[in-house]
Amino acid sequence: MDLHLVFLGTAGATPTVDRGSPAVLLARGGQRILIDCGEGTQRQLMRSVGLARLEMVLLTHLHGDHYLGLPGLLKTYSLLGREEPLVLYGPSGLYEMLRDAERLMGRPRFPFFAEEVGPGTVLETEDYALKTAPTDHGLPGLAWCLEEKPRPGLFHPERAVDLGVVPGPDFGRLQRGETVTTGEGRVVRPEEVMDSSRAGRKVVITGDTRPAGPVIELASEASVLVHDSTFASSEIGRALETGHSTSREAAEVAVAAGVAALVLTHVSSRHSWRELRDEARAVFPGAFLPRDLDTLVVPYPEKGPARLERV
Amino acid sequence: MDLHLVFLGTAGATPTVDRGSPAVLLARGGQRILIDCGEGTQRQLMRSVGLARLEMVLLTHLHGDHYLGLPGLLKTYSLLGREEPLVLYGPSGLYEMLRDAERLMGRPRFPFFAEEVGPGTVLETEDYALKTAPTDHGLPGLAWCLEEKPRPGLFHPERAVDLGVVPGPDFGRLQRGETVTTGEGRVVRPEEVMDSSRAGRKVVITGDTRPAGPVIELASEASVLVHDSTFASSEIGRALETGHSTSREAAEVAVAAGVAALVLTHVSSRHSWRELRDEARAVFPGAFLPRDLDTLVVPYPEKGPARLERV
Repeated sequence: MDLHLVFLGTAGATPTVDRGSPAVLLARGGQRILIDCGEGTQRQLMRSVGLARLEMVLLTHLHGDHYLGLPGLLKTYSLLGREEPLVLYGPSGLYEMLRDAERLMGRPRFPFFAEEVGPGTVLETEDYALKTAPTDHGLPGLAWCLEEKPRPGLFHPERAVDLGVVPGPDFGRLQRGETVTTGEGRVVRPEEVMDSSRAGRKVVITGDTRPAGPVIELASEASVLVHDSTFASSEIGRALETGHSTSREAAEVAVAAGVAALVLTHVSSRHSWRELRDEARAVFPGAFLPRDLDTLVVPYPEKGPARLERV
Repeated sequence: MDLHLVFLGTAGATPTVDRGSPAVLLARGGQRILIDCGEGTQRQLMRSVGLARLEMVLLTHLHGDHYLGLPGLLKTYSLLGREEPLVLYGPSGLYEMLRDAERLMGRPRFPFFAEEVGPGTVLETEDYALKTAPTDHGLPGLAWCLEEKPRPGLFHPERAVDLGVVPGPDFGRLQRGETVTTGEGRVVRPEEVMDSSRAGRKVVITGDTRPAGPVIELASEASVLVHDSTFASSEIGRALETGHSTSREAAEVAVAAGVAALVLTHVSSRHSWRELRDEARAVFPGAFLPRDLDTLVVPYPEKGPARLERV
């Protein structure tokens, strides 16, 4: 199943000509999850994957640059006659923000569900879990993690036939993890005909934060970590003061969590992207710094590393 | 003095890939006036004239597509350390909207003045007046008019010398409209040495509206009328239902008001721009339909017609 991230807005607190306010789209199969929704996100969606099939919006925290695009997006969905439900999760303060936003935009005219959540597992389906960890940004904030469950190992039909299993319903039973008995009375266990299960993918998006223990734990062995990288190390004082991370710190978090790839975002216009990227790469070579609308393709672990596709 | 309009957002109620939410910048000399501020306007400003020198924001009405960019713009000004005052004028309902918006963005950290105004003259300076007329869109709405005062006619120094005026302070007195007496006792009146006064320019921006008598009156003999042109005539039913104008109606307003140039905007994505423009031009040949960031240059009347400069 295809999984990719589209970096809809990679700017820090104020947008620039080249970088829009924060928003990341996580596309997985037909599923579309938006993480944060800065001003202008609806047009960035139109410019990339379109407005359709967005089923969930996750907010990392309630600073305006991360959600001021939400009223317009919801309004547009209402005007376009959206009928599919949309779910919004965010940290403490979400209900109050929504009450204020609805005074500006009116109530959505489609099924819209919002829920304030805390650290932990927010949602668990058959094949993935959505988890959060608290960030360190001076207000209630959540890093978000989508973690796929392990996939069953490859099934080897020739081994099953060798053991006397007749092709048909018993093949299905073995693949679902059940033991079967052959016509000759032999008990065949799934592990005899299937490889061991394969790891899924894990994507973590921090929102604004200082380096934080719970985030490192959440991101452990992740396929991709998208981390606040507002400043260069030369501005560590400002990073401390404003609750952001330097590129070097983002890279140190990536090393500590043992992730496979790091994406630097929320970059301040006071630094060149090259300075920030190179600073991170000195610590963690697998660091990317995308432009707006760049896409990070995240294959299954056995299919190779994540790669950035430029617009 | 240079006067031009930059069409920052030309979409209707929902933005598209190509057209952003409504906003027009009026630049006159060093003065920058923003009319409406849809989502994304701050970046459109950055992409064109920059954020600096904006001294006034005028809202035509309080539908979200016309002001949802305001919280982000004000927030950005706060973060950038703006110190210059900013004045916001809008129709009845402005104070309530601002209270709601400030709950989302916090209070601006620079001198910010907002005032609800009604139809009539809002502001009058030495060389221009800012006036409004009520629109017809189902809620309190204002069309905005910036009207320059007539400029003094050209001064002809050779005529003054012929009449015995000595070059020097008396030249200034004559140009300021005062009568002077020459050394030989001759009384020289300004009209003997100056051409008659020359008309200024007049720009009218309607916001969303059905064709409306007070708007036609406000736009009388205007240099430029920027008018709602959401639909083609084929959708007149929808125009009536939603309180918008067709391109043909916008052109009829332009004819009735005797304006020099018409700009069609707030165009719905259900029509091609060519269809809308051609429909208007059949009635009023001087109709433009700009793309986002196109600029309409408006010279003084004696210097020729307005012209659209494409991005």
